[in-house]
Amino acid sequence: MRNDTQSATVREARSRIRVSAFRWVPPFARGLVRDLRVRWALEEAGLPYEERLIGPEDQRSESYRSLQPFGQVPTYEEDGLVLFESGAIVLHVAERSEALMPSDPVRRARVKAWMFAALNSIEPRIQHLAELDLFYAGEEWAKQRRPGVVEATQARLADLARCLDGSDYLEERFTAADLLMTTVLRIVRHTDLVAQIPVLERYRLRCEARPAFQKALADQLAAFTPDP
Amino acid sequence: MRNDTQSATVREARSRIRVSAFRWVPPFARGLVRDLRVRWALEEAGLPYEERLIGPEDQRSESYRSLQPFGQVPTYEEDGLVLFESGAIVLHVAERSEALMPSDPVRRARVKAWMFAALNSIEPRIQHLAELDLFYAGEEWAKQRRPGVVEATQARLADLARCLDGSDYLEERFTAADLLMTTVLRIVRHTDLVAQIPVLERYRLRCEARPAFQKALADQLAAFTPDP
Repeated sequence: MRNDTQSATVREARSRIRVSAFRWVPPFARGLVRDLRVRWALEEAGLPYEERLIGPEDQRSESYRSLQPFGQVPTYEEDGLVLFESGAIVLHVAERSEALMPSDPVRRARVKAWMFAALNSIEPRIQHLAELDLFYAGEEWAKQRRPGVVEATQARLADLARCLDGSDYLEERFTAADLLMTTVLRIVRHTDLVAQIPVLERYRLRCEARPAFQKALADQLAAFTPDP
Repeated sequence: MRNDTQSATVREARSRIRVSAFRWVPPFARGLVRDLRVRWALEEAGLPYEERLIGPEDQRSESYRSLQPFGQVPTYEEDGLVLFESGAIVLHVAERSEALMPSDPVRRARVKAWMFAALNSIEPRIQHLAELDLFYAGEEWAKQRRPGVVEATQARLADLARCLDGSDYLEERFTAADLLMTTVLRIVRHTDLVAQIPVLERYRLRCEARPAFQKALADQLAAFTPDP
């Protein structure tokens, strides 16, 4: 790999980042779609990007599926590199930006542990509850199941709150882990489960107050076409 | 940080890896507990480790919770570094071992995308189905819910099978992504959902045939104390 300054500058100048997002989603999903994570990470890192807005026909198309195996958003394209999975894309951006991850290897490993915790230990329970409430609220089985899912979610949130008690962030400073965790907590914004735990609510608000989050959120919302 | 050869050698000689695992689990969970992922990664990387076997009293203890916020396994301890989350630990090991991840940055990013896909796009659905079947099979609501969960799982498995059709592995060669994906597919071993898709079943068997997997599995099973 050449790494003289001139070629690096040329490469940087040519490097275009493109992120896929939905052209339209129902109101309940606005501000939750996973491209928000990537937009936020890119804002924190100060990296400009273009949007690739897609609709249901793209989600089913062979060409989009070659970028994203499950037909979901976001995808990330840059100089021939194609990535999918919001967690992996945020990690990719964070590995290149001190704003999202410290350079010390031990600290980096800790940040990655919390990134996986957000997506593998907290999000599945929170997402389960959101699906029950948003897609199946009228079903008898959902009413019977809900208390158990709420309880499981509350248990994990209580564990998380214990880690955050007395700290502003999951590790010493804001990192990509807080970015992912905040977007996970937002998934149950239709409930008061986070608000019931002041430590968590303050944490969410602290992270959401960042200008990079506000910009990312505004840009996601601005991309949606008006309702038909 | 000192990095002359002598100090590196001394550090390496002293470096002890310790992985937590359960002292006992019910038969349905044996071969599925998440420390299997870390054991497998360490075997592929050729890194020896010690076990830290824990029970329910440890899971609730302050001292264990300071290592693992949710009281789960595995944890990973090495020279003052403490990690949790099986995905993050496998990534940490993979970043140091060519056996689990290529050195080229673009290829590494792709491997990480599939690692997140295994844990954030496939595992939540598969785990949901396993919980229904293993913990709530007798409940009326679970019977009503199950067909929808099976359908959602099958859709993701079909997407995954399309990516694997014609390939032995998710990327060019066996990587940490295949390791995680295999352990995710195993979670529904009580069903024929994977076996119904020959591409996936062959993939699972191909990965499970690796000596490192066999050793890791045998070691997890050997650690369980006999049933009371």
